[in-house]
Amino acid sequence: MAARPRLQFWHEFASTYSYIAAARIGALAAARGVDIVWRPFLLGPLFFQQQGMKDSPFNVVPDKGRYMWRDMERLCAGFDLSLHRPAVFPQHTVLAARVGLVAAHEGWIAEYSPAVYRANFAEGRDISKPETLAPLITAAGGDAEATLARAASDDIKAELRAASEEALGKGLFGAPSFVTDDGELFWGHDRMDAALDWAVTHTNTH
Amino acid sequence: MAARPRLQFWHEFASTYSYIAAARIGALAAARGVDIVWRPFLLGPLFFQQQGMKDSPFNVVPDKGRYMWRDMERLCAGFDLSLHRPAVFPQHTVLAARVGLVAAHEGWIAEYSPAVYRANFAEGRDISKPETLAPLITAAGGDAEATLARAASDDIKAELRAASEEALGKGLFGAPSFVTDDGELFWGHDRMDAALDWAVTHTNTH
Repeated sequence: MAARPRLQFWHEFASTYSYIAAARIGALAAARGVDIVWRPFLLGPLFFQQQGMKDSPFNVVPDKGRYMWRDMERLCAGFDLSLHRPAVFPQHTVLAARVGLVAAHEGWIAEYSPAVYRANFAEGRDISKPETLAPLITAAGGDAEATLARAASDDIKAELRAASEEALGKGLFGAPSFVTDDGELFWGHDRMDAALDWAVTHTNTH
Repeated sequence: MAARPRLQFWHEFASTYSYIAAARIGALAAARGVDIVWRPFLLGPLFFQQQGMKDSPFNVVPDKGRYMWRDMERLCAGFDLSLHRPAVFPQHTVLAARVGLVAAHEGWIAEYSPAVYRANFAEGRDISKPETLAPLITAAGGDAEATLARAASDDIKAELRAASEEALGKGLFGAPSFVTDDGELFWGHDRMDAALDWAVTHTNTH
């Protein structure tokens, strides 16, 4: 039997380009027969450890930030995605990421993660708040109260810290990032198609 | 008569992704009927003014650098371009850029710039030296001795400084960058097609 190709999708909920990737990856992966392994993580610890940055590079370098928002406008228009620039950028995403880990364990993250990005970047909502996440959890197929309780557990907190460590170990430095089973790293929504293609062409069938 | 679409191509000779852009832009532009305005410039002053960086971000952030070289390997393989990682990165490009300004004035920059990138990134040669540039100038259609003399003139030196100032004013922060006649900025080889398309669809015919 042939092994199904697989691709890790590392996504930080404050990342603008990850919004587009999260909105598109499901259909593109399905069309190629690739299973997506949704990996929520926090980028902040990487930015700090690798670059000493305590804020988004799009805030640290204003020209880069201005360009990014314009680029997002053009891209979202092209993909027919709504874009509402959030009042706070980057948002605090610790809770959303912890819920994401629960969602991954319970099997509803493919619905949850895109919904969090829409709340952040299409609806301008505050995704740091449990009351914002609760209905997204329910709509994705989770139990909001139980999920938020589990998201606050020491196990999940440790798992999220470990995810950033694992990301560092894999050489990640931004989001979205894609990692294939043979360890190939692709950075950015611009490389999503290449990453999916790599997963297909470099999967051993046995 | 319809105006021909036009696109400014801002390129720094030390920039890896600009190598790919310079190798490909001529054919892509010709296929769309777009005139390329080749704009050599120095990125160093922008990195320093905008980010306080005195070196390439690919050296400042080693994980990003490792990724970039691997990404370049994959991209160059896909576009059938040779890649030889230069011993020195980034190379000193002041002379190559000054010669580029002369080449732009005299009309042979579309041959010269891609040749400088090949020398840097396909042949591993030292493009800071006049003896490396001289045969490239000749092959591109220039007079090597006269060009190198003009490149050392105060006029050309001032023009290169002014180019970096103009780049800052247009919001550039990296290379390659593309600017349309209506002021739209596109950053990176990944946006080259979009930039060319924009130039075509947003040019007023009259």
